[in-house]
Amino acid sequence: MRIALDGTGGDHAPAAMVAGALAAAREYGAEVVLVGPEKALAAELKRQGGSLPIHPAEPTDAGDKAEVRPKRGSAIERGLRLVKEGGAEAFVSAGSTAALLTGAIWTLGRIKGIERPALGTALPTASGRGCLLLDMGANTEAKPENLVQFALMGEAYVRLAYGLQRPRIGLLNVGTEPNKGHELAKTAHAMLTASGLEFTGNVEARDLFAGVADVLVCDGFTGNVVLKALEGTVATIFALLRQELTSGPMAKAAALLLKPRLKALKARFDYAEYGGAPFLGVQGLCIKCHGSSDAKAIKNGIRVAARAAGLPGLIAGSLARAMPDGPS
Amino acid sequence: MRIALDGTGGDHAPAAMVAGALAAAREYGAEVVLVGPEKALAAELKRQGGSLPIHPAEPTDAGDKAEVRPKRGSAIERGLRLVKEGGAEAFVSAGSTAALLTGAIWTLGRIKGIERPALGTALPTASGRGCLLLDMGANTEAKPENLVQFALMGEAYVRLAYGLQRPRIGLLNVGTEPNKGHELAKTAHAMLTASGLEFTGNVEARDLFAGVADVLVCDGFTGNVVLKALEGTVATIFALLRQELTSGPMAKAAALLLKPRLKALKARFDYAEYGGAPFLGVQGLCIKCHGSSDAKAIKNGIRVAARAAGLPGLIAGSLARAMPDGPS
Repeated sequence: MRIALDGTGGDHAPAAMVAGALAAAREYGAEVVLVGPEKALAAELKRQGGSLPIHPAEPTDAGDKAEVRPKRGSAIERGLRLVKEGGAEAFVSAGSTAALLTGAIWTLGRIKGIERPALGTALPTASGRGCLLLDMGANTEAKPENLVQFALMGEAYVRLAYGLQRPRIGLLNVGTEPNKGHELAKTAHAMLTASGLEFTGNVEARDLFAGVADVLVCDGFTGNVVLKALEGTVATIFALLRQELTSGPMAKAAALLLKPRLKALKARFDYAEYGGAPFLGVQGLCIKCHGSSDAKAIKNGIRVAARAAGLPGLIAGSLARAMPDGPS
Repeated sequence: MRIALDGTGGDHAPAAMVAGALAAAREYGAEVVLVGPEKALAAELKRQGGSLPIHPAEPTDAGDKAEVRPKRGSAIERGLRLVKEGGAEAFVSAGSTAALLTGAIWTLGRIKGIERPALGTALPTASGRGCLLLDMGANTEAKPENLVQFALMGEAYVRLAYGLQRPRIGLLNVGTEPNKGHELAKTAHAMLTASGLEFTGNVEARDLFAGVADVLVCDGFTGNVVLKALEGTVATIFALLRQELTSGPMAKAAALLLKPRLKALKARFDYAEYGGAPFLGVQGLCIKCHGSSDAKAIKNGIRVAARAAGLPGLIAGSLARAMPDGPS
C-alpha cells in the first residue's frame, strides 16, 4: 500500500510532512512517497534522520485560490498522476483545496455514475466515533439525487475508514420531522428513505456532536457555512476563555492548573486532528489535510488514506447495487 | 408606549413574565399589559407584590408545534389583536415561534411590498454591538429580492433597537469574493451592491462574532442551521468543560475559582439574553423571546420592543425610497 504525500502544501511544509510521513512509516508501517522538490525534501529528510522515496515535483502554486487546474509538474498534479497511473493508492495533501479538487476531477476523473464528487469532514462526537459531514463545499448547488449519492459515498468511506458495518445516514435539516425544510431537503428525505441505506432521518445542526448519525449529508453551501460557523464559535469561545483566564492572579493560578485539560478540550474540536477531509467520487483516493496541519495531522491523514484506499471500488459497487440499470 | 406581554408562553411562565414586566416598568418606565389568564396572573402579581393591567386570554396551545394559526382567545391571538387595534405598540412573547409567526401574519398582515417577513436574531459580537442575523427560519426558501428586503428591514430594526446611524449590511456566504456561492448569493450580492445600503459584501460564517457587519442576511434554511450549529457547539463545549472541571481535586479547586467567570462567558453566547428575536415585515412590532427566557431576558425583550416600536413605519418608508415606483 503506497501513499503519495504532497511535501509542499500547507503552512508547515516540508518539516511537518516529512515528520508525519516518518511517524506513519514507523507506527503503521505505511509506505509513503514524498512528492515535491527533491533537494529540499532530501535535506529535510536528512535533518530529521529519516529516509523515504521522493517523487520530484515543483511546489503547487496556491496563487489567488482561483479554482484553476494545478499546473503540470506541480506537486498536486504529479501526486494525482501517480495515483492515476498506479504508482500509489492514495494522495494526501495539505495544499490548496481548490487546486486539489479541480486537479482530482481533471486527472483522476469521476467514478462512473457519480454526478458530483463531494468533500467530507470528520466532526468529533461525544461517543468518539466521529461523524462525516458532506458536502463541505466542493459544490455550491445540489439536487436531491446528489445528496443521495453523497450518502452512498459517505457510507462507503466510513465503512472503510472507521470500520463501521452499517453506518447511520442523517440529513441535515431545520427540524426532525420528515416534512421539514426546503424542497431540496424534503425530496432528499423521501429518496433517502427509499434508498435502502440505514437512513435515520433529519438531524438538526444542534445535534452535530451528538453522534446520532455516522454520515450527515447536505448541500455544499450549507455544509461550508456550518463548518465555518463551528470554527468561528470554537475560536471565539477559546479566545474569550483565554482572556478570562489571564485577568487577575486567582484566575491565572486556576488557569495554570487547567491548561493541559483546556488544550486537550480544544483539540477535540480541531477537525484537523481527525485525519483529513476525503474527496469522494473521484477515481482514486484523495485526502485533503488542513493547511495548518502539523506532523500529527499529516500522520493521521496517511493512516486514514491507508485504511480507505479501496474506496473508489467500493463506491462503484454501492452505486451499481443502488442503480442496477445504470446511472441516468 | 404600551407593550403587550404574553404572560403564558415559555418555560418559566408566568413567574418570569411578571418579574420581567415589573423590572422593565421599574427600570425603564415601560408600560406593560400582561396578556393571559386573569386569575393566575393576578395571583402571581400579588405574590411578587406588583401591579400591572391584565388583558384576559387563554394560554396559547403550543400543541405539536404545527404551523397553524393560534386559536381565537389565546394569549398570542389576543396580544397581536391588541397591537392591531392600537391598544399596544408591540407584542412580546416567549411562546411557540410557529404560532407567533403565523398569528402575526394573519392578524397584523404584511407591510405593503414586503413579500416575506423574516425572523432576526441578535448574535453577540466581540465589540458588544451585536449583529442581527436574519432570516432565522421564518421561510425555508428565498429569492435574491427577499434577501434585499431582509437587509432593508434589518437595517431599519438595528437603527431603532441599537441606535446605529448607518448600519453595515453583510451577506452570509462561503467566501468573501463577490463571485462566491450559489446563484442566490451571487445575485443577492449584485442587488445589495446596487441597493444604496451600506453593503460590506460577503461575510463568512467564521466571522459571525467578529462584528464585521451589523446586519447579516441569508435564506431561512441557512440561518436556522447556522443558529442551531452555534447552539450545539456552545452547549457541547461547556458540557465538556464542566466534565473537565469536575474530574479530580485539582480541577475542582480551579473550577471553584473560575465558576463565576465561566458562567458570565457562557451568558455572552446565550442569544436569549440579547433581547429576543424580532419578526420583521408585519404591520406591528412583534418580539419572540426564547422559550427558556428568565425574567432578565423578558425585561430585555420589553426594552427592545419599546425602543423599536416605530419599526413598521420605518420599514415602509425605507421600502418606498428603495422602490419608488411601488413594489412589483
